[in-house]
Amino acid sequence: MLTAGSGTGSGDAAARGAIRRNNVSVVLRHLRRGARSRTEISRDLGLPNSTVSKLVGELVELGLVTDDERRRAGGIGRPHQAVALRTGARCGLGVEISVNYIRVIALDLPGDVVLDDRAPVEQDRRDHHATLDLAADLVAAALTALRATGTAVTGVTVATPGHVDRDTGVVRLATNLGWSGVPVAAELADRLGPDAPPVRVDNDARLGTVAEHRVAHVPSLLYLTGEVGVAGGIVVDDTLVLGAAHAAGELGHMPLDPRGAACPCGQRGCFETMVGLGTFLSYAADATDPLRDQHRDLEERLALGTARAAAGDARTIRAIDRIAADLGLGLGLLVNVLDPAVVVLGGYFSHLGEALLSRVRAEVTGRVLAPHAGGCDVRLSRLGFTAAARGAAETVLDDVFTDPASFAVPIP
Amino acid sequence: MLTAGSGTGSGDAAARGAIRRNNVSVVLRHLRRGARSRTEISRDLGLPNSTVSKLVGELVELGLVTDDERRRAGGIGRPHQAVALRTGARCGLGVEISVNYIRVIALDLPGDVVLDDRAPVEQDRRDHHATLDLAADLVAAALTALRATGTAVTGVTVATPGHVDRDTGVVRLATNLGWSGVPVAAELADRLGPDAPPVRVDNDARLGTVAEHRVAHVPSLLYLTGEVGVAGGIVVDDTLVLGAAHAAGELGHMPLDPRGAACPCGQRGCFETMVGLGTFLSYAADATDPLRDQHRDLEERLALGTARAAAGDARTIRAIDRIAADLGLGLGLLVNVLDPAVVVLGGYFSHLGEALLSRVRAEVTGRVLAPHAGGCDVRLSRLGFTAAARGAAETVLDDVFTDPASFAVPIP
Repeated sequence: MLTAGSGTGSGDAAARGAIRRNNVSVVLRHLRRGARSRTEISRDLGLPNSTVSKLVGELVELGLVTDDERRRAGGIGRPHQAVALRTGARCGLGVEISVNYIRVIALDLPGDVVLDDRAPVEQDRRDHHATLDLAADLVAAALTALRATGTAVTGVTVATPGHVDRDTGVVRLATNLGWSGVPVAAELADRLGPDAPPVRVDNDARLGTVAEHRVAHVPSLLYLTGEVGVAGGIVVDDTLVLGAAHAAGELGHMPLDPRGAACPCGQRGCFETMVGLGTFLSYAADATDPLRDQHRDLEERLALGTARAAAGDARTIRAIDRIAADLGLGLGLLVNVLDPAVVVLGGYFSHLGEALLSRVRAEVTGRVLAPHAGGCDVRLSRLGFTAAARGAAETVLDDVFTDPASFAVPIP
Repeated sequence: MLTAGSGTGSGDAAARGAIRRNNVSVVLRHLRRGARSRTEISRDLGLPNSTVSKLVGELVELGLVTDDERRRAGGIGRPHQAVALRTGARCGLGVEISVNYIRVIALDLPGDVVLDDRAPVEQDRRDHHATLDLAADLVAAALTALRATGTAVTGVTVATPGHVDRDTGVVRLATNLGWSGVPVAAELADRLGPDAPPVRVDNDARLGTVAEHRVAHVPSLLYLTGEVGVAGGIVVDDTLVLGAAHAAGELGHMPLDPRGAACPCGQRGCFETMVGLGTFLSYAADATDPLRDQHRDLEERLALGTARAAAGDARTIRAIDRIAADLGLGLGLLVNVLDPAVVVLGGYFSHLGEALLSRVRAEVTGRVLAPHAGGCDVRLSRLGFTAAARGAAETVLDDVFTDPASFAVPIP
């Protein structure tokens, strides 16, 4: 791309101002990959040392960056990785509303979790009013706690399943929640009151993909997450594939068996009907088994399942095998289509452990035409059920990285 | 991204030279979208008029661009779209080797076809030596014809099905051709002799995607082409998705029916077994029917098929319907996953016309979760069987657009 200054010297003060603001943002975004010395920033970005010093100085004044180099100027030896994003100064708040729980996570600029809270959603009080009351209580408590530590909260992003209109903050249709046309952003903002930071809403699987991409350190990635629903996201060239209508990532509704179970979407044999949480639980246990008790915490139930498998329980092992085989079917398809560097299995899949993973890997390798599945690395998520809320918090912070000057934080 | 000159004035002659070379390329690439006046170029690219004039002047001197504005300097009124890519001066040669035919197409810088030739591949002489002999004859004749018109040929790109190593020019595995480990680039270059332009090889479906994207004018696109095999390509943000191992786009091997036909890839019920050319022909006619006579030209046989459908032949109509329903199954899946702005049906699908298209559209709309299929526009290719050879020629020209100074053409 062209930038001003590349022509024949007819400079323009306004254009230079825009470039300077952009460069402040570029340096801040570069630090998102980790702390750097000024020399490294200069080399990585191809900028003169003097320019880097000025830009880092601006970021320090904005309260977004710490610069040990400056403090150690009188010291001995060569300082390393002295410029870093400031911890605890400014954070984004992510809220995931799922069928089974609500989770609130705050991330600060370096991406560290500074708050993590969750509450189960009672299955007999799932109308959206009750759920949003509960979400508002959790968020209000989080805001109070963060303010007490002096952390500025930039915004709140809510992750929900289903089709979300990001511009209006309305959940258009979330079948598994039973929500249709719920103005989540407006209702939550109303409950939080005028002093709360702005509230936005986005799709949970998409936000989970953002979080997984941030920790995976690869340019292309496929994320598949399973709970009641199955969905995911695609990253190509370090960019989330949104789709022309912002509808990409409906990985749960790939019709893989014309004689399969009817899916609420209208098709038969959807991937979601084959590998969703309900299918796994019905394979693994009878209806009266504690594994299927919806009043019990989901993560505890999954721990019970993996404990049974580890103890050699045949039915649980068969259930995991069957889910793994069908996961391999759908993932093999997607790897043939997209050839990502990494596939991350999130949500409940990530709780089923190595037994699931080894079987899925073998199945994918057997189905992908490229030798050795093109080197595609199928992994279990280390973020598990936290991915959506983390991704939501990350996207809040994106605003700071894009326009640092608008998000200055006082330095104590 | 940062560029030099954006800092605090510590200029660097080498860096300025690199920027200038880049800007010459940016202007040339901008003209690939169509002719422009200098004022328009200046506005579109955010460059001063004086800079644009110098860059256009360089491109005129390189023989790659014509500039009517200069010629008309003494004229009256405001000239429009005076700067254009030069027609007929420099071209890329694309060669498609398919199961049924070899096609050679030359495109000049503005993207116009300046040569189009093809020959059927005799089905009983399909070893790679005979096929490459035939390809070399066609290319040699094309080079002679183009040289006679004074057109410089930048290079030759060969499109083949299967897994191609672009770096070495070796076709690793093309099942439908029966080729394995064929060094196509080296063998063809050997046949053409030392005076011929450089030869490269790439995958046919991928090159077809490049050609379709060039004429579709949308940032995201899914291309599906069918002949003996079924494959395609994906464009996101105006960029072809290559995949981490350059293996993306195996759309023909989506397993859509566990009880379906066995596929040579090892899976069952692959999309290719459901909608490939052989399946359509077997639906539409008995083995002795002229429609299935492999010694007849494929495009003539397809014309015979559509003529029968137009005349109300029930079997042909049922065959088209069945292919359309299965196309809708696989395309619905892909639209749910990727949500492209446009789906282009190429190859033999594009010859089956509106009867196929209307049924496919209805099926896709019924299967995609986003309302109205997210606005996705399913189209028949206008390039048909020429897409792969055109895309091959386009990628040859990419070299010129990336580094114009290395591809100067004498001005007569």
